[in-house]
Amino acid sequence: MIIVMAGHATPEQIADVEKRIAEWGYGVHPIHGTERTVIGAVGVPEADKARYMESLESLSYVEQVIAIIKPYKFASRELHPDGSVVDVKGVKVGGNQIALMAGPCTVESYDQTMESAVACKAAGATILRGGAFKPSTSVYSFQGLGLEGLKILKAVADSQDMRVITEVMDPRNVDMVCEYADILQIGTRNMQNYDLLREVGRVKTPVMIKRGMWAKIEEWLQAAEYVLAGGNPNVMLCERGIRTFETYTRNTLDLSAVPAVKELSHLPVVIDPSQGTGRRSLVEAMCRAAVAVGADGLLIEVHPHPDRALKDGAQSLTTGDFGPMMDRLRPIAQSIGRSI
Amino acid sequence: MIIVMAGHATPEQIADVEKRIAEWGYGVHPIHGTERTVIGAVGVPEADKARYMESLESLSYVEQVIAIIKPYKFASRELHPDGSVVDVKGVKVGGNQIALMAGPCTVESYDQTMESAVACKAAGATILRGGAFKPSTSVYSFQGLGLEGLKILKAVADSQDMRVITEVMDPRNVDMVCEYADILQIGTRNMQNYDLLREVGRVKTPVMIKRGMWAKIEEWLQAAEYVLAGGNPNVMLCERGIRTFETYTRNTLDLSAVPAVKELSHLPVVIDPSQGTGRRSLVEAMCRAAVAVGADGLLIEVHPHPDRALKDGAQSLTTGDFGPMMDRLRPIAQSIGRSI
Amino acid sequence: MIIVMAGHATPEQIADVEKRIAEWGYGVHPIHGTERTVIGAVGVPEADKARYMESLESLSYVEQVIAIIKPYKFASRELHPDGSVVDVKGVKVGGNQIALMAGPCTVESYDQTMESAVACKAAGATILRGGAFKPSTSVYSFQGLGLEGLKILKAVADSQDMRVITEVMDPRNVDMVCEYADILQIGTRNMQNYDLLREVGRVKTPVMIKRGMWAKIEEWLQAAEYVLAGGNPNVMLCERGIRTFETYTRNTLDLSAVPAVKELSHLPVVIDPSQGTGRRSLVEAMCRAAVAVGADGLLIEVHPHPDRALKDGAQSLTTGDFGPMMDRLRPIAQSIGRSI
Amino acid sequence: MIIVMAGHATPEQIADVEKRIAEWGYGVHPIHGTERTVIGAVGVPEADKARYMESLESLSYVEQVIAIIKPYKFASRELHPDGSVVDVKGVKVGGNQIALMAGPCTVESYDQTMESAVACKAAGATILRGGAFKPSTSVYSFQGLGLEGLKILKAVADSQDMRVITEVMDPRNVDMVCEYADILQIGTRNMQNYDLLREVGRVKTPVMIKRGMWAKIEEWLQAAEYVLAGGNPNVMLCERGIRTFETYTRNTLDLSAVPAVKELSHLPVVIDPSQGTGRRSLVEAMCRAAVAVGADGLLIEVHPHPDRALKDGAQSLTTGDFGPMMDRLRPIAQSIGRSI
Repeated sequence: MIIVMAGHATPEQIADVEKRIAEWGYGVHPIHGTERTVIGAVGVPEADKARYMESLESLSYVEQVIAIIKPYKFASRELHPDGSVVDVKGVKVGGNQIALMAGPCTVESYDQTMESAVACKAAGATILRGGAFKPSTSVYSFQGLGLEGLKILKAVADSQDMRVITEVMDPRNVDMVCEYADILQIGTRNMQNYDLLREVGRVKTPVMIKRGMWAKIEEWLQAAEYVLAGGNPNVMLCERGIRTFETYTRNTLDLSAVPAVKELSHLPVVIDPSQGTGRRSLVEAMCRAAVAVGADGLLIEVHPHPDRALKDGAQSLTTGDFGPMMDRLRPIAQSIGRSI
Repeated sequence: MIIVMAGHATPEQIADVEKRIAEWGYGVHPIHGTERTVIGAVGVPEADKARYMESLESLSYVEQVIAIIKPYKFASRELHPDGSVVDVKGVKVGGNQIALMAGPCTVESYDQTMESAVACKAAGATILRGGAFKPSTSVYSFQGLGLEGLKILKAVADSQDMRVITEVMDPRNVDMVCEYADILQIGTRNMQNYDLLREVGRVKTPVMIKRGMWAKIEEWLQAAEYVLAGGNPNVMLCERGIRTFETYTRNTLDLSAVPAVKELSHLPVVIDPSQGTGRRSLVEAMCRAAVAVGADGLLIEVHPHPDRALKDGAQSLTTGDFGPMMDRLRPIAQSIGRSI
Repeated sequence: MIIVMAGHATPEQIADVEKRIAEWGYGVHPIHGTERTVIGAVGVPEADKARYMESLESLSYVEQVIAIIKPYKFASRELHPDGSVVDVKGVKVGGNQIALMAGPCTVESYDQTMESAVACKAAGATILRGGAFKPSTSVYSFQGLGLEGLKILKAVADSQDMRVITEVMDPRNVDMVCEYADILQIGTRNMQNYDLLREVGRVKTPVMIKRGMWAKIEEWLQAAEYVLAGGNPNVMLCERGIRTFETYTRNTLDLSAVPAVKELSHLPVVIDPSQGTGRRSLVEAMCRAAVAVGADGLLIEVHPHPDRALKDGAQSLTTGDFGPMMDRLRPIAQSIGRSI
Repeated sequence: MIIVMAGHATPEQIADVEKRIAEWGYGVHPIHGTERTVIGAVGVPEADKARYMESLESLSYVEQVIAIIKPYKFASRELHPDGSVVDVKGVKVGGNQIALMAGPCTVESYDQTMESAVACKAAGATILRGGAFKPSTSVYSFQGLGLEGLKILKAVADSQDMRVITEVMDPRNVDMVCEYADILQIGTRNMQNYDLLREVGRVKTPVMIKRGMWAKIEEWLQAAEYVLAGGNPNVMLCERGIRTFETYTRNTLDLSAVPAVKELSHLPVVIDPSQGTGRRSLVEAMCRAAVAVGADGLLIEVHPHPDRALKDGAQSLTTGDFGPMMDRLRPIAQSIGRSI
C-alpha cells in the first residue's frame, strides 16, 4: 500500500509512519517528492490491509492511503486466467452457448408457471426463473407463495427438462431452497447481506449474485469472494441495473460491467434486461446489446398475461412475443461466434 | 391512481381501461384532454394498488400510471400528526432533548469499550454504540466479536448507566441480540432485508433503521412500515449518507432528509456524521448542522486510539476530542430551543 | 396537467385552485378521491405550463402538480413518426448504414491527424473527429490548437474525402467553426449552455448534442428542442456516458438511452464508447453492443500513438487496432440488417 | 505521481516506464512489491502532469497512474492558509458576518423586484439576487428580461443600498453584466463552460461559482482555478445541491461540501437552500444547518407572491415569512460566534 503524507507533515511524523510500518513487519520505501512524501509499504497481507490502512488514515499527518492489490483473490482473473464455466446439472453458464433463463417474475400458480415455462422452453430457454420469495418494497404487496411456489417451480421445470433459478432471501431458508432450486439467486437488495452470502457459500448449489443497485464492480466481486472463500466455487454474477438519476428507466443497465468484470474476474456474467430497464419496450434492444457485449446468459421475465401479473407486468414479455424475439437474437450470437 | 393513456390510444382502448377499473370495483373518472386522455381511479386500497398499477402499465396503450396516495400508513404523519418519542428504558429519542449515541465503531475488547464509554458518558452520551456483528465489504476484514462483543457492550453500558445500540444482521440472531441491546440497529446494507425487518417487527425492542445508501426517502419509510406493520411501534430512522459520485467524502450526508422525513412521517430521525462523511475532520461541522437542522439524535464513533482501531479509525473521534466538541454543540441546541 | 391537492386541503382551497385554472382559461376536471382530491386542467399550452405548474406548486394546499404532455414538440416522435436522417454533405446519419466517426481526441499536428485519418478512412470511417477547442477540467491542461486545429482538420478530411465533426464551445466561435466543420459537436459540459444552443440553432450545419453527464433523457431532448425550435432541423444526439458512483469506468455508458430515445424521438443517436468507458480495453465490447442496440453512429477516438497523445490516450484505440476491430463489427451490423 | 504497473508487467516493461519518466526529466523511484511494482515519479510540474499521466495510462502494462498533488494551486489552502474575504463594495463575504443574498428567482418587473428587495433589506439582506438571464430547461419557458432586468435590479438595489448578484450565461455579455452587477454568478449548468470562466477571469468583479450538479468538489475547485489563474482573485463558491437518485427533493444539498472546501481551499462558500431543496417547506431547516455548518453566506429566493412567480415559485419564501425566519437564524449564528 502507498501512504501519502500530508503537505504539512514534519520529518518526525514521517518517521513515525515509517516506524509503524516497520513494526508491523513490512518493507518501508519512502519517496521524498517536491511537495509530498509518499511511503510504500511492501508485503502487507490482505487480511491485515484494511485494518492498517484505516489506522494510518486516522493520523492527522497522513493525507491518503492507497491500496495497490485488489481486495479479492478467488474471484480474480489473475489467479484464474481462463473464464469459469458453471455447470448447472448439465446446463453450462460461461461457455460458448449463451444460457437462457426465462419465466415469470413471480410464481402465481401452477398454470401460469407452466404456460410460461412451455413457451420459454420452446424459445430455447433451459433454465426456468420464477420468484417464490419476493422482495417487495411495500409490505402491502404480494410477497410470493413461498414453499408452495418452490414446489410448483420444480414440478414445472422437471416436466420441461429445465433447471430452476429462484431467489433466496433468508439464511434460514437456504437448505430448503436448495431442495428445489438449481441456482440460488441473491437479489440486488441482499448483495451485501453477509450472513446470507456465508450461508450460500457453505453449499455447493450454484449461486447467482445480482449486483447491488448501489454497488461498485469491486464491491460486487468482494460479495462473490464471500461465497467463493466460503467454499462454493459455483458463482455467477448478474448485472441488473444500477441506480442513477435517470427516471425514464427503472434502473440504468450497465453493460460495460460485462467486459469490465471479464478483465478483472473469471466469473460468468448474466444480464437481466427486464429489471435493468423496467420497460417491456426496451427489453429486446437490451437483449441484443447484452449478447453482443459478451454476456454469458440472459435472465428475462416472460408472462402469459402481463396485464394480469401480480408483479412486474410492465417489464414482462408475453409468451407470444418471446419466441420470435429469441429468433432475432440468434444471428447476433452467431455473428460473434456464439450460440444461444 | 391516475392512468395516463398513450397519445395513440383509441376510444376502444380507453374504454378497455375504464372497464378494467370498473370491474375491480373502483370509481372511474376520465378526463379527455387535448392530447391525452387521463383516467382517475378512485377507491383503490393500498393492498391492491401496486398490482393494479403494474397491470395497467403492462398495456401498450397506457403511457403511465401515477400513484396519488403514499404507500405507507403507520409511518405517515397524516395519521399521527405529533412526532413520536421512542422510550429506550427511560432515555427518550424524539423529544426535546437530542439523544447522544456514541462509542467505538467496533467492540474490540472490554478495555477499549470501557475507555470509550467512560469518555462518551462524561461528554453527555446516554446510549453506547458499538458493533459486535460487523458488515464488512471484504470477507478478509474483521467481522466483529459476535456474542462476546454483545456481552462486553452490555457489561460496560450497565456500569455506566447507558443504553446499548448495536447492529443485528441475521434474522436468526434477533432474539439473542435483544438480550443485550436496547436498540436494534438495521444497517444500511440491510434496509431492504425484509426477512430481517419482519423479525425485528415481531419484538418490542426499539429499532433504528439506517437509510440504504441507495434508498429514496419513500423507500426508507416503506422499510419502516415493515417493522411498524409487524407490530413494533418503536421505530427510529438514521440518515448515514447516500451514495453519490463524490469521492472526497465516503458518502453524501443528506441533511435535508431530516425536515423531509419530518413532514412525511412522525418517526424520530438520528444523524450519523461518522459514516456520513468518513472523515474525522468533517464530523464536528456536520454535528453542528445536524443539531441545527432538527435531528433527534446523533450517532458518533469515538475511539480511545483511532490509529489502533480495527475498523473505521479514519472517521472516529478520539475520546479526548469528544467532550470539548459536545460542549461546542450545546449552544447550538439551545439556540433552537433544545438541549443535548 | 394534474393537480394533487394536499390531504388537509379544505373545500375552499380546492375551490381556489379550480378558480385559478378557470381564470387562466383552461378546463377544470376535479376527481374527489377517498383521501385526496385531484384536479385535471385541460388545454394548457406548453408555453404557459411551466409557469402555471410552479404557481400551483407554491400553494401550501397543493401537494404535487404533474405534467402529462412531454415538454418538447419538434424533438418528439409523436409528430414525426419516421426516424430522421441527417445528411452531412452526402454522408447519412440515421439511415440503414451506421455512420462511423473516428479520429484523434485532439488535433495535435498535421501529421498526427493525417496518420489517424488515413487509418480511420481505410477502416470505413466517413467522418473525421478531432478536437480543436478542448474542454479541459484543469486550466493547466492542453486546451487545443484552436483555429489552427480547425484548418488541419479540414485539410486532412478533404484529402481523404471525409466529413469533419468538431466541438464548438463558445457562441462567438460558431460562425468560424461552421467554415471548417460539417457537424458541430456540443460537448457534455455544454448541453445546457443555452446561449450556445441558440447560436447553433441559427445555422444549418448539422449539430450533434452530447448528453450532459447529469442529464435525464427528457432534459437532453429539451436541449435538442432549443436547436430545433431555433430553426436548425439537422440535429443528432450522442450518448457518452452519465456520471454515477462507479469508478472503474470513467462514466457509465447508458445504452438503454438508444431505444429509449427512439421511442420518444425521431432524432438519430450516436454512441461514444471512448468517453463512455475511459478505457481502451472496453471500447470494442461497447462498440459491439452499440451496434446491436441500434445506434445510428459510433464516435471513436483513434490515435497513431496513444502513449504520446496530449489528451485521452488511455481511451484511444491505436490506428493499427482500429481496422481489425471494425471488421469484427460488420457481421453484427449485418445480423440486424444494417451495414457499417 | 505514482505509477502502478500491471501484475503481468515484465522487467522490460517496467524499465520502459522508468526510461520514459527519466527522459521527461523527473526522478524515478521504483518500489518492488510482492505482487506489483510501483514507480514514483518526482518533480512533475502541474502543467505536464495530466498529459504524462494519460500517456502512461495508455500503456497496456500500466494498471493505474495516481496523482499525488492537487490539480489546483491558486484555489488551494496550502498556499493561502487564511480564509479569503471577498469585498463586494464594502459588503464582505467570508468574514465573521454571514452574508445574506436574497431576492426573487427572476426579475419580472420593477414593482415585484422592489417589493422583494424592501422585505429582504428589512430582514438583513445586503445583497439583492435576481435573474435577468435565466437558464431554462425548456425553450418554451420564460428566459428572463435581459438588459431590462439588469437595469431594474440595479435601480432597486441602489435605492436600498444593496449590492447586486445576477447570473451571466454568455461570454459576450460579461462586460454588460459587469455594469450592473456586483457579483457575477456562474450557474450550475455553466460550471465547466470554460470560455465563460476565462471571460470572468479577465474582469475584477467578484464571481460566485455554483457547483455543477454533477461536479466533484475537486472539479469545482478546478473551475475556480480557471478564474483565479485568469487574474480575478475575487472568487466565492456556492453549493446548490447535486443530482442524485432522490426525487423528493429537487437536488441533494451537500452541506459537507462546506467543511470539505474549507479544508482544501481558502475560498468562501455560500449555500443556496432554495435550489438545493426545491421545496419552500425545507428552506428554513436547511438555512439553520447552513449557518451551523459554517457557510459564509446564504442565497435565498424570496418573492412577494410565489403563486404568481414566473419561475420557481414552489421554492420561494414569501416576503412576509422571510423576516421572522431570519430572526430565528440569528441565535444560531451567535451560538457559533458569528453574526448574520
